[in-house]
Amino acid sequence: MTFRAPVRDLAFSLRHVAGFDQLADAYPEADSDTVDAVLEAAGVFAAEVLAPINRAGDLVGAKLENGVVRSAPGFAEAYKAFAEAGWTSLAAAPEHGGQGLPKALEIATLEMVQAANMAFGLCPMLSLGAIEALALHGTERHKALFLPKLVSGEWTGTMNLTEPQAGSDLAAITTMATPDGQGGWTISGQKIFITWGDHDATDNIVHLVLARTPDAPAGVKGVSLFLASKVLIDESGKPGVVNDVRVGGLEHKLGIHGSPTCVMLFEGAKAELVGTLHQGVAHMFTMMNAARLQVGAQGTAIAERAYQQALNFSLERVQGRSAWTGAYPTRLFDHPDVRRTLLLMKAKIEAARGICLSTAVAADLAHAASDPAVRATAKLREELLTPIAKAWSTDVGVEVASLGVQIHGGMGFIEETGAAQHYRDARITPIYEGTNGIQAIDLIGRKLGLADGQAVADLMDDIRDTIEALKAADASLTPVAGRLEAALDAAASATAWLVDRRARAMPDALSGATAYLKLLGDTVGGWMLAKGALAPGAEALRGQLLRIYAESVLAQVPGQLAAVTLGDADLVAVTPEALGVH
Amino acid sequence: MTFRAPVRDLAFSLRHVAGFDQLADAYPEADSDTVDAVLEAAGVFAAEVLAPINRAGDLVGAKLENGVVRSAPGFAEAYKAFAEAGWTSLAAAPEHGGQGLPKALEIATLEMVQAANMAFGLCPMLSLGAIEALALHGTERHKALFLPKLVSGEWTGTMNLTEPQAGSDLAAITTMATPDGQGGWTISGQKIFITWGDHDATDNIVHLVLARTPDAPAGVKGVSLFLASKVLIDESGKPGVVNDVRVGGLEHKLGIHGSPTCVMLFEGAKAELVGTLHQGVAHMFTMMNAARLQVGAQGTAIAERAYQQALNFSLERVQGRSAWTGAYPTRLFDHPDVRRTLLLMKAKIEAARGICLSTAVAADLAHAASDPAVRATAKLREELLTPIAKAWSTDVGVEVASLGVQIHGGMGFIEETGAAQHYRDARITPIYEGTNGIQAIDLIGRKLGLADGQAVADLMDDIRDTIEALKAADASLTPVAGRLEAALDAAASATAWLVDRRARAMPDALSGATAYLKLLGDTVGGWMLAKGALAPGAEALRGQLLRIYAESVLAQVPGQLAAVTLGDADLVAVTPEALGVH
Repeated sequence: MTFRAPVRDLAFSLRHVAGFDQLADAYPEADSDTVDAVLEAAGVFAAEVLAPINRAGDLVGAKLENGVVRSAPGFAEAYKAFAEAGWTSLAAAPEHGGQGLPKALEIATLEMVQAANMAFGLCPMLSLGAIEALALHGTERHKALFLPKLVSGEWTGTMNLTEPQAGSDLAAITTMATPDGQGGWTISGQKIFITWGDHDATDNIVHLVLARTPDAPAGVKGVSLFLASKVLIDESGKPGVVNDVRVGGLEHKLGIHGSPTCVMLFEGAKAELVGTLHQGVAHMFTMMNAARLQVGAQGTAIAERAYQQALNFSLERVQGRSAWTGAYPTRLFDHPDVRRTLLLMKAKIEAARGICLSTAVAADLAHAASDPAVRATAKLREELLTPIAKAWSTDVGVEVASLGVQIHGGMGFIEETGAAQHYRDARITPIYEGTNGIQAIDLIGRKLGLADGQAVADLMDDIRDTIEALKAADASLTPVAGRLEAALDAAASATAWLVDRRARAMPDALSGATAYLKLLGDTVGGWMLAKGALAPGAEALRGQLLRIYAESVLAQVPGQLAAVTLGDADLVAVTPEALGVH
Repeated sequence: MTFRAPVRDLAFSLRHVAGFDQLADAYPEADSDTVDAVLEAAGVFAAEVLAPINRAGDLVGAKLENGVVRSAPGFAEAYKAFAEAGWTSLAAAPEHGGQGLPKALEIATLEMVQAANMAFGLCPMLSLGAIEALALHGTERHKALFLPKLVSGEWTGTMNLTEPQAGSDLAAITTMATPDGQGGWTISGQKIFITWGDHDATDNIVHLVLARTPDAPAGVKGVSLFLASKVLIDESGKPGVVNDVRVGGLEHKLGIHGSPTCVMLFEGAKAELVGTLHQGVAHMFTMMNAARLQVGAQGTAIAERAYQQALNFSLERVQGRSAWTGAYPTRLFDHPDVRRTLLLMKAKIEAARGICLSTAVAADLAHAASDPAVRATAKLREELLTPIAKAWSTDVGVEVASLGVQIHGGMGFIEETGAAQHYRDARITPIYEGTNGIQAIDLIGRKLGLADGQAVADLMDDIRDTIEALKAADASLTPVAGRLEAALDAAASATAWLVDRRARAMPDALSGATAYLKLLGDTVGGWMLAKGALAPGAEALRGQLLRIYAESVLAQVPGQLAAVTLGDADLVAVTPEALGVH
């Protein structure tokens, strides 16, 4: 089906929800015309180049042939065009060949890329992580020879973290890096789930690899970060021999078949240390916020795609009698239950989009605002919102993709229709870059304590300001103020309970972690929609989405407090035997 | 992975939740020993014969070869063994060769069959519909020559309703049946989504087909029900020539690959009228409750299977440090967030199981109780609970299957693990036998008005009795009484609002239909768990499941009232153009 790039919605969300205008001083070149032009061009590329190859990517997928990965049909060509058009360099620093635009704009363009073709979008997404790693921690050689190639998109990057026994737990990594006696390192070990670990779209691939070194301390503090390129390059950047890195296999996955998920075998591969010895995990964590936000945007993206497909179907498919007009036969769109579902999907997408773009604006401010106090405050906001952006938005992705299948009825279960692919593709997003359970633990374990609780206090103050604005707005929005206020009160109570428990009964707090992330995410999502509805000259739709969300989602938030504060007493008592496992 | 048939949980739910003992008079042969023996034997068959071929069914699937369907590997042999063991005849009437046991026991055995292998389970499930149709509406010839073959499982049955333009809307059927001048009929037309429409597991297949007749009234009142067997049989039941029914193709589906979903082409096929001319849709509706309940049990089943797989994985997979003991590395099961998720999955499964088995007990009472007043009351309960059993349980199926993937982390997204298959298989259950949106419309449009509201009033009275029992129980259960009471109050308010609106503003009511089904289902689910926790000598687990459900689900029910009573004002105002479609 046709994909309509949501250019207008993204521009609206950037300006009226995420507060993009706060970046005017730090990013003077990102003026209104530039933003519109970039979004428009990215939308055209996504719709005209990436969306048309999405289905073939799913059906044919990437293949392993004679030890090398052959990209899905059209993907290599599309990638070359993508890089040539400059889409890999948008937010990179000018000194590395980038365009120096805000990350918020990059996230907005990436959302369209991911919506058009999520399997494709993973390739540039992983490169962005490698770019950030080398920009922050690379040597002069890395910055001179590797970084510009990644920024230009001539080469792509990968992240090699996971091993069979080390998924969420990086302390369990066993891949070894040993000094080669000439100032370099050789890496041996097996990495799994390596996204775009090999392909035929570029001449070289830059693998960033977490590995343990001889005599290193146990646990995460003994892990270092290395660079091992697919093709070795000499001092001048000239390509030499192929490195001892091999693709051991491709995973057979539920979705994103166009994205080659590789088993990577490092068999004495030549490598270079990135950053400080034994600081590998810490170095990775400096990139974590960005990567998690990108996955959050993927959640929004797949929801947008699924919603569009369902909306189109509801306008084409004629079935039954309209409860409103009595017309027979009528479009699915003319059944109240279907229309309600579509609007709730749309509301959740706009909420997720607002959360992700707000997180990105905070990241830009934290990076580039001239005032250190602004930078510090924005950093807190970025840190606090990141797990919500990642987990809440990807949960929305899965939920909306499932509703998209449902609206299609029996046709939704047929692969040719396309709705099923979104349902399959979406399912990875709550898992990778830290499962949503880990995001919830990060939120209560680390983020609630940021600046002694200032991060969450600031957020709640800002939401209260919007509640006041709702109360002062026209009568169609005042009931919503009460819903948002009740939600925020519940969020405040839940936060206070968790802050108390995390200090003295961590398992109590942890057992409510996922419930808390949902409670806070639902509330923040309502705040995003409220800002949209309050925007000067906002279309009627913004108020409609807010009201439907307020009555369908915000109204249930106070009731979620119980799930947060349940504690762990019953959990402790349960044994596998009581559950029937003997 | 190994499938453990939940024999003990099913026996518990039948006895202590669904009230199976009410059937003692009507079904004296279904005594305690018989129930245990039947469940045990069905569990062994499901675990040892059906579960092991589930993965091959998914991977290889059914194939169309030279116009006939070749079943998935092992399926035809398993089906023969299934029929020979008597599993097709459990609840059929003895005069048709059945064992005359309660449907509640049949649903319990079928749940295990569906959990072990949902694609397989669809074959006997569809036959049950054909058995019921012929038992209720068949001619003497049908009852003498076709029915016993279906009951014995020698032949299977299909339901041919859907056409490309007629999915949920049976009024749009165009398949034509014309008199053949010899007292019979010939059928021409195309049917789609015909489950097990063809296969190689039996010698004959009995197709029940909805078709329009010449000069029939427009709409559903012009549709009649016909029988067209794959192989024609003569007066003595001897097989003759093959009928003019052809498989036009197999659908490429998201899941249940082992179940052949056929396009059926009737090309002047010889057919026999079943029941009364022009009463075809009404005849189908008499079977609808049973079919919908069976799908509800499928939802429970796939949730059970996904939960078991996730529980097993959580006990095997070692990752991270236990928040409780500090042990490193520790099982996933020892992380509070994971254990909480598993218990909530289990609680929802027990709630769905209780709802489905309670519906089945009501159906048995409605059918066989000696007291007409009991039959009438039970019929109301069966009618009221059926849409909840179907929709709520299948939503649980999808939700729990998704959580099952999530608990596996990255491994959940890999097809070899098996969790992904459940996520794919589960997705059909909210769609077929009437989408869950249609169930919600049935609930508010038809069921709320049953006996002038007596059906829902009776249900609420029974729930209040359990609330009183909770209040009188030990202190660990009294807080739950408050949660269930608040949920019930919300259900009562929602019901009152809907009863008012459906009389004068149906679109208002319809726009809250899905929200109402969820609200009522969540409440009834809590009631089921409460009955389990109150059972004499119930294990501690029953109280734990109830408390977790009460705080995680029931506590949010009052907040759902707003979603029910939102009305349609904002829906009416929204246009496709406002949603970006031009």
